[in-house]
Amino acid sequence: MPKDYKQLALDQSKALKGKISIQLRDTLDSKDKLSTYYTPGVGAVSSHLAKHPEETRDYTWTNNNVAVISDGSAVLGLGNIGPEGALPVMEGKSMLFKHFADIDAVPIVLNVHTADEIVAAAAAIAPSFGGINLEDIAAPLCFEIEERLKKMLPIPVFHDDQHGTAVVTLAGLINATKLTDRELKNSKVVLVGAGAAGVAIAKLLHLYAPGVEVIAVDSTGIIYKGRAKLNTSKELLLEFTNPNNVEGSLADAVSGADIFIGVSQPGLLTAELVKSMAKDPIIFAMANPTPEIFPDEALAAGAAIVATGRSDFPNQVNNALAFPGIFRGALDNRVRQITDQHKIKAAEVIAALVENPDVEHIVPPIGDERLVPEIAKIII
Amino acid sequence: MPKDYKQLALDQSKALKGKISIQLRDTLDSKDKLSTYYTPGVGAVSSHLAKHPEETRDYTWTNNNVAVISDGSAVLGLGNIGPEGALPVMEGKSMLFKHFADIDAVPIVLNVHTADEIVAAAAAIAPSFGGINLEDIAAPLCFEIEERLKKMLPIPVFHDDQHGTAVVTLAGLINATKLTDRELKNSKVVLVGAGAAGVAIAKLLHLYAPGVEVIAVDSTGIIYKGRAKLNTSKELLLEFTNPNNVEGSLADAVSGADIFIGVSQPGLLTAELVKSMAKDPIIFAMANPTPEIFPDEALAAGAAIVATGRSDFPNQVNNALAFPGIFRGALDNRVRQITDQHKIKAAEVIAALVENPDVEHIVPPIGDERLVPEIAKIII
Repeated sequence: MPKDYKQLALDQSKALKGKISIQLRDTLDSKDKLSTYYTPGVGAVSSHLAKHPEETRDYTWTNNNVAVISDGSAVLGLGNIGPEGALPVMEGKSMLFKHFADIDAVPIVLNVHTADEIVAAAAAIAPSFGGINLEDIAAPLCFEIEERLKKMLPIPVFHDDQHGTAVVTLAGLINATKLTDRELKNSKVVLVGAGAAGVAIAKLLHLYAPGVEVIAVDSTGIIYKGRAKLNTSKELLLEFTNPNNVEGSLADAVSGADIFIGVSQPGLLTAELVKSMAKDPIIFAMANPTPEIFPDEALAAGAAIVATGRSDFPNQVNNALAFPGIFRGALDNRVRQITDQHKIKAAEVIAALVENPDVEHIVPPIGDERLVPEIAKIII
Repeated sequence: MPKDYKQLALDQSKALKGKISIQLRDTLDSKDKLSTYYTPGVGAVSSHLAKHPEETRDYTWTNNNVAVISDGSAVLGLGNIGPEGALPVMEGKSMLFKHFADIDAVPIVLNVHTADEIVAAAAAIAPSFGGINLEDIAAPLCFEIEERLKKMLPIPVFHDDQHGTAVVTLAGLINATKLTDRELKNSKVVLVGAGAAGVAIAKLLHLYAPGVEVIAVDSTGIIYKGRAKLNTSKELLLEFTNPNNVEGSLADAVSGADIFIGVSQPGLLTAELVKSMAKDPIIFAMANPTPEIFPDEALAAGAAIVATGRSDFPNQVNNALAFPGIFRGALDNRVRQITDQHKIKAAEVIAALVENPDVEHIVPPIGDERLVPEIAKIII
């Protein structure tokens, strides 16, 4: 019987009174230290940085901190639950940052919800941080917010729901296609889910393997140019998907496809649909916590490789494989922007860390100690 | 020879790479813990708080954290040096919060400088914190910003440069007037400095000892109604000072005065001026780091009691006596506003902690372990 993590999470969060705290890098146990770290000593550091703001990272914790910013508009699978609801997730993310990459991440949940307000708040507080991790902000607002902040700010801004997911998906597909004797550029991919992750995955696959045919599907069916009521996310998706502008249902899209990528709804992919795919299909069923199809069922229906977002099945395709190393590298190497080339290289590094990939090992386990240093090296 | 704290501060800040970091309240060393603190467990906490946002402090670090917010417009005696220059001071303040009160304080320096923008940024991030300590924001903007935030937000907002200074000044005066057989309400006080601290001191003295005659002075002389070019701060000062609307110079104001309070410029008070004061005058020369007059010189000129902001002279009147206990109480007792009554009671508590006050002991030493719990008790 699986543990009741929900009750454990409630009990533990309450018992610990939050999951993080502030720690001093030195004690304050003497007048000398008070005079050094506060007045009068600190005035010298302030004067110096006022003249040389470019040296701020040498003298403050901005060399090692990031803000984890969310407005709570798309929290896990829970939707728009607001800043209070988002805060436990941001604290959890802060734990991951510290545990995996020794980065000091500060949860910042916002009580504002328009793109202008979110951009203004994030830009206002930006001098306090060495980087910004945007988290759980709903599409399509997340695209505009990230783009505007990247243009405005001298520090890296990275929406992990988009790019972290895209990087680990690509990493998994690099090994999965090898194992099934495919080339991604010649594959037909069905992508279900038109949110932040879906758009970023489509874009990264398009950049990595020009020629790959990605068909994006939403609850109405295949997304094609000219379909009624396309929102911004779906317009964006069409820049990287459906080159032949085909129409049809999910079943039409899946029929004959090599790869299924789900960032959508539990149970959406049936065994029947898997059977309609090409031989040895690859299934990434990443809806959280309940996947689009469970691995056993997909394998029984003929899938060659199944990945999910969960730790209790093989092939956990999880952002925690990517973001710690990406931010570690960005901070250490003082990179101002995480580029598409960084994302592709990070995916290649993650894939290459699996020395002998097999159908149950297409990505390294979360916590593989090589991940952070190896990824950080290429974020330059 | 005094230590070179400036060089020490520069060296130590650089060596430590910042003065604070994030610490986890539990390790993340098992899949069970990952599943508890992050997905899938955390979803239960988020769902719960989305329905019961009033319980956020029970499940997140907001029960023990505050934002230390500055736009860098009035940093120490350095003036408007911007967010980067302010950051080392805010990190130092965060150290004080942790060391004295075990509070997790997060430095937030802002790259915006109008009242509207500062209020918008602070209000946007407010759900992330259990309180807001405004710091080193220039007058008169600081008054409007604090008032607006107090009205908008359900958490305490406290501008320490104003109220912390006013509380410790009042605490010191309670004992200093006793020792010189005065009553504050019958005293004549000269207050030099029309910034954040000056206005707050004038207001608190007025509330605590109605009838006290406070004469505020700036570089032009006594501030009186009808004087040319009075800015907002000086208009505010006149609500609590100069009841007889006298005019004149600093010398005119000081002549015959019982108490001098300086939050202004080094060296402004001469021995000659001290000699012109009433018998056994009280001098609070709190300009930092160089006082309006040094204690030896003031005592030689007849002063009965001299206080400064410095740790190397007796009677250190420093905000660190007040703000740790005030915030500790506000967080523990879930107080939504720090009121004028809280400030007066805090001053009385601080004064009463000196069991046998004498001319060199009018306030407890910084770090007196009774300060935080005793002050916290009355912030209810």
